[in-house]
Amino acid sequence: MAYELYYWPTIPGRGEFVRQALEDAGVDYVDIAREKGAGQGVKGMMAAMSGAEATHPSFAPPFLRDGDVTIGQTANILLYLGGRLGLAPQEEAARLWTHQIQLTIADCVAEAHDTHHPIAVDLYYEDQKPEAARRAKSFREDRIPKFLDWFETILARNPDGDAHLVGATASYVDLSAHLLVSGLDYAFPNAMARHLPARKRLVRLAQAVAERPRFAAYLSSRRRLPFNEQGIFRRYRELDAARP
Amino acid sequence: MAYELYYWPTIPGRGEFVRQALEDAGVDYVDIAREKGAGQGVKGMMAAMSGAEATHPSFAPPFLRDGDVTIGQTANILLYLGGRLGLAPQEEAARLWTHQIQLTIADCVAEAHDTHHPIAVDLYYEDQKPEAARRAKSFREDRIPKFLDWFETILARNPDGDAHLVGATASYVDLSAHLLVSGLDYAFPNAMARHLPARKRLVRLAQAVAERPRFAAYLSSRRRLPFNEQGIFRRYRELDAARP
Repeated sequence: MAYELYYWPTIPGRGEFVRQALEDAGVDYVDIAREKGAGQGVKGMMAAMSGAEATHPSFAPPFLRDGDVTIGQTANILLYLGGRLGLAPQEEAARLWTHQIQLTIADCVAEAHDTHHPIAVDLYYEDQKPEAARRAKSFREDRIPKFLDWFETILARNPDGDAHLVGATASYVDLSAHLLVSGLDYAFPNAMARHLPARKRLVRLAQAVAERPRFAAYLSSRRRLPFNEQGIFRRYRELDAARP
Repeated sequence: MAYELYYWPTIPGRGEFVRQALEDAGVDYVDIAREKGAGQGVKGMMAAMSGAEATHPSFAPPFLRDGDVTIGQTANILLYLGGRLGLAPQEEAARLWTHQIQLTIADCVAEAHDTHHPIAVDLYYEDQKPEAARRAKSFREDRIPKFLDWFETILARNPDGDAHLVGATASYVDLSAHLLVSGLDYAFPNAMARHLPARKRLVRLAQAVAERPRFAAYLSSRRRLPFNEQGIFRRYRELDAARP
């Protein structure tokens, strides 16, 4: 039976981390909220998420259904899928290290989101622009370099070589690192042009991921939703200063 | 061998979620940064975290050492410890559901932190007070009720009864829910006095956790660090309006 992914249909967002893993693995899945059948679309997603029969209701999308198992929280979904998709190590300590990296990516994603929503998720960006400008400066100049350095360090220290974040083969965190770099590059092209080139291992990793055959086919397909200004990574010129 | 917990020595913070699980289970552990021996204290913690020999360096504390395994990210540490401490179900789907709840608690904790640091973690609260006032209002009036409702819902829908978040016995997320409620109650006593009473299942759960013998003994011990204004949950009168 095909996996069912439940996520907002018009943004890559957090669901994209799961979608890319499913695409790279080449498995069957249904992107429920982008379909138009019974129990599908956003209405179907919301019913599945919080309808009265849901004993494991997620606080928010994305969530995944695999038969009678329902799993929410992006990193948790990838923890579940990793071994099944051949995109995670089997041994417990390595599996938890992979998950730890994904959780740290999630932290960076949350901070990237809050650059345009520092005050409230329920308000528009236009209602929190001065605060966003302050938060974005801190994120751009202090937090992005700190996160990039961490990825560079763990690549450098991987006992199996610096081609992958974990072990000697690709895992879902390699794909997620690519998405994080792509998203930051979309939202903060000026800042990333300053910060990224010195992190050569991370640059190489992101390039290598983009060249994986199924991944590359997905990136150029219509299934891939482009970054946009309703998502997590948004390009607002005023949040990305040309100079530090 | 005793578990080694690495976390800041003067705040409960995120480390407290791990500390309380270790305490409730009654296992031996060393709270490294609060000790004064060689390789201990904050200096020892920082060396263990990012010293050149660390192949799995955490982005930030807390992290745990169990023999030659090092694990970071609070929820990930609890995922590792849960089964070992008898504080998590064994079956995979139930284990992942437990972890999903912990990750949602972590999201709420991050939002609680950002009420006093909406702009930058590297700035003092005093440097972001107007923004904090706006963010705290949204957190107090919109986000806290939404999170509390979610906990109330999953308690109500637990097929094994509403005494626990998962299954028919205590798990680490019950302890974490107690800490979250306690922290929110410390930081936002006025808001919680409005929001909490209607969530009766959650109130009962928090009370039941506080009465667990080892947990109660820990709460009244000197090992327990009180909430304070360097931690995640801070009591700033101006962030907790007497009325909505």
